[in-house]
Amino acid sequence: MTWSVYLSGEIHTDWRETIAAGARAADLDVRFSAPVTDHAASDDCGVAILGAEGDKFWHDAKGARLNAIRTRTLIEEADIVVVRFGDKYKQWNAAFDAGYAAALGKAIVVLHQPEHQHALKEVDAAALAVAETPDQVVAILLYVIDGKLAGYKDT
Amino acid sequence: MTWSVYLSGEIHTDWRETIAAGARAADLDVRFSAPVTDHAASDDCGVAILGAEGDKFWHDAKGARLNAIRTRTLIEEADIVVVRFGDKYKQWNAAFDAGYAAALGKAIVVLHQPEHQHALKEVDAAALAVAETPDQVVAILLYVIDGKLAGYKDT
Amino acid sequence: MTWSVYLSGEIHTDWRETIAAGARAADLDVRFSAPVTDHAASDDCGVAILGAEGDKFWHDAKGARLNAIRTRTLIEEADIVVVRFGDKYKQWNAAFDAGYAAALGKAIVVLHQPEHQHALKEVDAAALAVAETPDQVVAILLYVIDGKLAGYKDT
Amino acid sequence: MTWSVYLSGEIHTDWRETIAAGARAADLDVRFSAPVTDHAASDDCGVAILGAEGDKFWHDAKGARLNAIRTRTLIEEADIVVVRFGDKYKQWNAAFDAGYAAALGKAIVVLHQPEHQHALKEVDAAALAVAETPDQVVAILLYVIDGKLAGYKDT
Amino acid sequence: MTWSVYLSGEIHTDWRETIAAGARAADLDVRFSAPVTDHAASDDCGVAILGAEGDKFWHDAKGARLNAIRTRTLIEEADIVVVRFGDKYKQWNAAFDAGYAAALGKAIVVLHQPEHQHALKEVDAAALAVAETPDQVVAILLYVIDGKLAGYKDT
Amino acid sequence: MTWSVYLSGEIHTDWRETIAAGARAADLDVRFSAPVTDHAASDDCGVAILGAEGDKFWHDAKGARLNAIRTRTLIEEADIVVVRFGDKYKQWNAAFDAGYAAALGKAIVVLHQPEHQHALKEVDAAALAVAETPDQVVAILLYVIDGKLAGYKDT
Amino acid sequence: MTWSVYLSGEIHTDWRETIAAGARAADLDVRFSAPVTDHAASDDCGVAILGAEGDKFWHDAKGARLNAIRTRTLIEEADIVVVRFGDKYKQWNAAFDAGYAAALGKAIVVLHQPEHQHALKEVDAAALAVAETPDQVVAILLYVIDGKLAGYKDT
Amino acid sequence: MTWSVYLSGEIHTDWRETIAAGARAADLDVRFSAPVTDHAASDDCGVAILGAEGDKFWHDAKGARLNAIRTRTLIEEADIVVVRFGDKYKQWNAAFDAGYAAALGKAIVVLHQPEHQHALKEVDAAALAVAETPDQVVAILLYVIDGKLAGYKDT
Repeated sequence: MTWSVYLSGEIHTDWRETIAAGARAADLDVRFSAPVTDHAASDDCGVAILGAEGDKFWHDAKGARLNAIRTRTLIEEADIVVVRFGDKYKQWNAAFDAGYAAALGKAIVVLHQPEHQHALKEVDAAALAVAETPDQVVAILLYVIDGKLAGYKDT
Repeated sequence: MTWSVYLSGEIHTDWRETIAAGARAADLDVRFSAPVTDHAASDDCGVAILGAEGDKFWHDAKGARLNAIRTRTLIEEADIVVVRFGDKYKQWNAAFDAGYAAALGKAIVVLHQPEHQHALKEVDAAALAVAETPDQVVAILLYVIDGKLAGYKDT
Repeated sequence: MTWSVYLSGEIHTDWRETIAAGARAADLDVRFSAPVTDHAASDDCGVAILGAEGDKFWHDAKGARLNAIRTRTLIEEADIVVVRFGDKYKQWNAAFDAGYAAALGKAIVVLHQPEHQHALKEVDAAALAVAETPDQVVAILLYVIDGKLAGYKDT
Repeated sequence: MTWSVYLSGEIHTDWRETIAAGARAADLDVRFSAPVTDHAASDDCGVAILGAEGDKFWHDAKGARLNAIRTRTLIEEADIVVVRFGDKYKQWNAAFDAGYAAALGKAIVVLHQPEHQHALKEVDAAALAVAETPDQVVAILLYVIDGKLAGYKDT
Repeated sequence: MTWSVYLSGEIHTDWRETIAAGARAADLDVRFSAPVTDHAASDDCGVAILGAEGDKFWHDAKGARLNAIRTRTLIEEADIVVVRFGDKYKQWNAAFDAGYAAALGKAIVVLHQPEHQHALKEVDAAALAVAETPDQVVAILLYVIDGKLAGYKDT
Repeated sequence: MTWSVYLSGEIHTDWRETIAAGARAADLDVRFSAPVTDHAASDDCGVAILGAEGDKFWHDAKGARLNAIRTRTLIEEADIVVVRFGDKYKQWNAAFDAGYAAALGKAIVVLHQPEHQHALKEVDAAALAVAETPDQVVAILLYVIDGKLAGYKDT
Repeated sequence: MTWSVYLSGEIHTDWRETIAAGARAADLDVRFSAPVTDHAASDDCGVAILGAEGDKFWHDAKGARLNAIRTRTLIEEADIVVVRFGDKYKQWNAAFDAGYAAALGKAIVVLHQPEHQHALKEVDAAALAVAETPDQVVAILLYVIDGKLAGYKDT
Repeated sequence: MTWSVYLSGEIHTDWRETIAAGARAADLDVRFSAPVTDHAASDDCGVAILGAEGDKFWHDAKGARLNAIRTRTLIEEADIVVVRFGDKYKQWNAAFDAGYAAALGKAIVVLHQPEHQHALKEVDAAALAVAETPDQVVAILLYVIDGKLAGYKDT
């Protein structure tokens, strides 16, 4: 079985590549998906394709709804949803994705620094794992998918 | 992941071919499906296979129910449902398909000319995108599936 | 058990009142619901409450989405959905409601004149009854809910 | 039918009371529910009932999971979920609730000031209405539940 | 909690009345429902309300679909579905109801004479109880709903 | 897309082979499944594998429940369920399968001789097609899956 | 809203009464349900009602399936499922109920002594709260339903 | 169709290998999955990857929740869930898995020695087969998937 893992949230660091590289190195049978990570394209896709809007609200609405075609489809198709919160921005879309995945019964892994712990307590409470580094996410996938845990003999 | 896109609605122009050709040109990993687009076959399939009816109502009922085997199965299997409204006919079946897809939580793209905007407002309100041309639908698929948007560097 | 019946579609004749009066006369245990039937309010509700829009598309979008709060909630809550198609207008919202109800597995009764029979064949094919008059709908409710059929002794 | 409305999000102003008072004044058939709005109790409930934790992470986890018994049950039971974002705090729990409600197909109304518009675009895109004031929410409920719209004759 | 029990199947003996009388005598908090049990009305309801058909197939189709409005709604609303097979007729509708209830996860009680045991083995295999008499069904309801079992002290 | 078709019901004639041969001849992209059609094995599988039973009821129960592992899994996996009623036996399992498939929203095709028409009216009413011969079922599959209808030019 | 709480598991102490008394004292709007707690009746109900079995396996099967009519219906109807593990017996039915409730997305509260902590870790991991005493469960209900927490001012 | 079979429960004997070897010998089209069967890794995975915990409860909670990512995903993906109870330990996780699978409507096969029969009666009652040896499970799979039963001619 090929596991499907959706990588939601922060788009300004290379955490997705780190996880994908780790999974490749471990030869995991996994397929990753993600939102469009080009910030400008993600913001403008609606008006770029469907026509300009004078009002910023509708500019954003058109784009956000286009992005939702991708994100909701991929979350629904995923076995595991990893949601990363970074250091900047409101990142309400990441928390929205976590809630969306939770209601669908997806296995959720949250990835964030300790300083966000209190603010993210409701999101963490819906997760099956709370990690701090992409390497921990790789270790989780390695264990969960292949049953391998460093230092344990039979795995 | 191969995306599945159902192309519902108007059957008298070549909009489906335009979209399929655009997707092929972009080498998208997508599978299109559609209702039977031969108008006469679609009308007569029930009686042609299962026997003639004297009453037009049952003639139509037999055909419509056969077509439903195809259309409902394919809509349920689709990730995205594109519904096109043309210039002629009542096209209640297109609106029915849109409602059916909406209740299943499918991502809906509506495709119609501006003159139908007011009459289609409830259908549009259930869509994640409202387009006017098949080329816009191709651009949407290109963005949604492959994350590519003309003029944006990283995509 | 109180049955819940949603009366969708045409808003320019008094067919809803006819059905409600018939149900009352028969003392049926039924609760009717419906969309907002004031055409102007239904068109303008979005901008009246949430602020004007310069573009007719967004004017309509705001209204249609507000109306959807009511209509989708009530359709989901209904046991039976009656959808009436009148003589005028495109009435795509009525067909949309029928499709929405069909995907939810609701019992659907369609109400229309014979001249629309061919154009409505896909909608009719999803219905458990196709009626021509409000009185027939009352008779259906009387039979379905109370088991009473005029001229039959035990019912 | 009694409508059920869940009021999620910001807990430091009296917006819930404003909405409830407006609904009462209009004699709406509606039942409101909400998270526990005492900030301290909400933070400490887990350890207060189930025993202290030395580690803040588990202190918060215990509380957040207790609160989830209430919030998830009430969101699932609601017809409409109103989510308010205030001026302060990360409010990831509000966005989480919105995502949770969206995946369940609930009708969502978002309530926030214009300055959060861009950051909330994904949440707004999942909503059927975006309001700026509690009074607008009251007007929405009045229209959606009772079909009444100020200035329109038949409603 | 009021339990809802649907009594499906054979309509030529008074087994439903026996069960209802037993439940009343035990003061059980239960609501019974059933198909229309007037055989003639059940056969003719479609044409009586919606107009005659020359072809027996459509005569029956119209009636069966009207009856389905009642039966499917009530089965979906039931907690327990009791299906009785009598001595005569094909009774495929009873087996159909059992399959319908099974797929919905309803608790099924089958009621039939021993001579049908082999022919009904697939239906029995989907049931949580197989009874031979209406009195046994009453005893089941008394135990399941009120926890009372003749001869046992604490119940 | 490979369509999945489950062939339920009568096991004493070669109708399944006729349909499969027709589909092969037409090069349809379809996968057929069916219950175990060896009558003796189907009756005895439970006790043959899990140990003899003195009581015929439990002999049958063990077998029927083993068969249910196969039949329910395959029905749930199917796009189309064809249910054939033959000339002999009660065939309550066929009607049960039809009800099971109906509640799951599967497209149902019923296959039976005209003499069973009245007794099967409830089952037929849940079907999207009622055929009399296996060749008609092949024609339905050819039309529904490939859009081909003999004598119609574009299909 | 009346909350529905199912009290699963151990039947040899009066923990259910303790919880119910606490809820009554706090005037909580809650309805409790439970399995039949008379051990002998629970074991024998199947044969007592439906006839004796020579084989203990079928004696137990008949009883367990009757009990399942009650337990599965009440778990499905519940908002919160409390599962208590006592000091004796295997109590696999309690763990089964917990798994059943978890798959349905119910809010689960587990109640057990510290010595079972390791053996119950998978069950605890599916719960939103793990308590040691019935009084803690009362406090949880008081907080979750009424928002009251001893020592906190606004609640 | 490749059948998916999840092998839950006891991890101290080689029953999984016996079943897999039998399936391979019979050339069955089946894919097996299982929890991580290295006891130590299963206990420690949470802290090994995500950091040590001073409190055994949280040590276990972290591990159990990581394991749940694997087990719940694989149970949801399975067609058949085999649950084995061994001679030792509480094995509440096995019963939990059975309940979880039951609520999802999975076909369940329970595998245990006769001495556990009474204690497992609720679990057995939810199963479609109760076996005592891995070889019986192989025979079940051979029959259910390929229709082959030793000693029966046509299968």
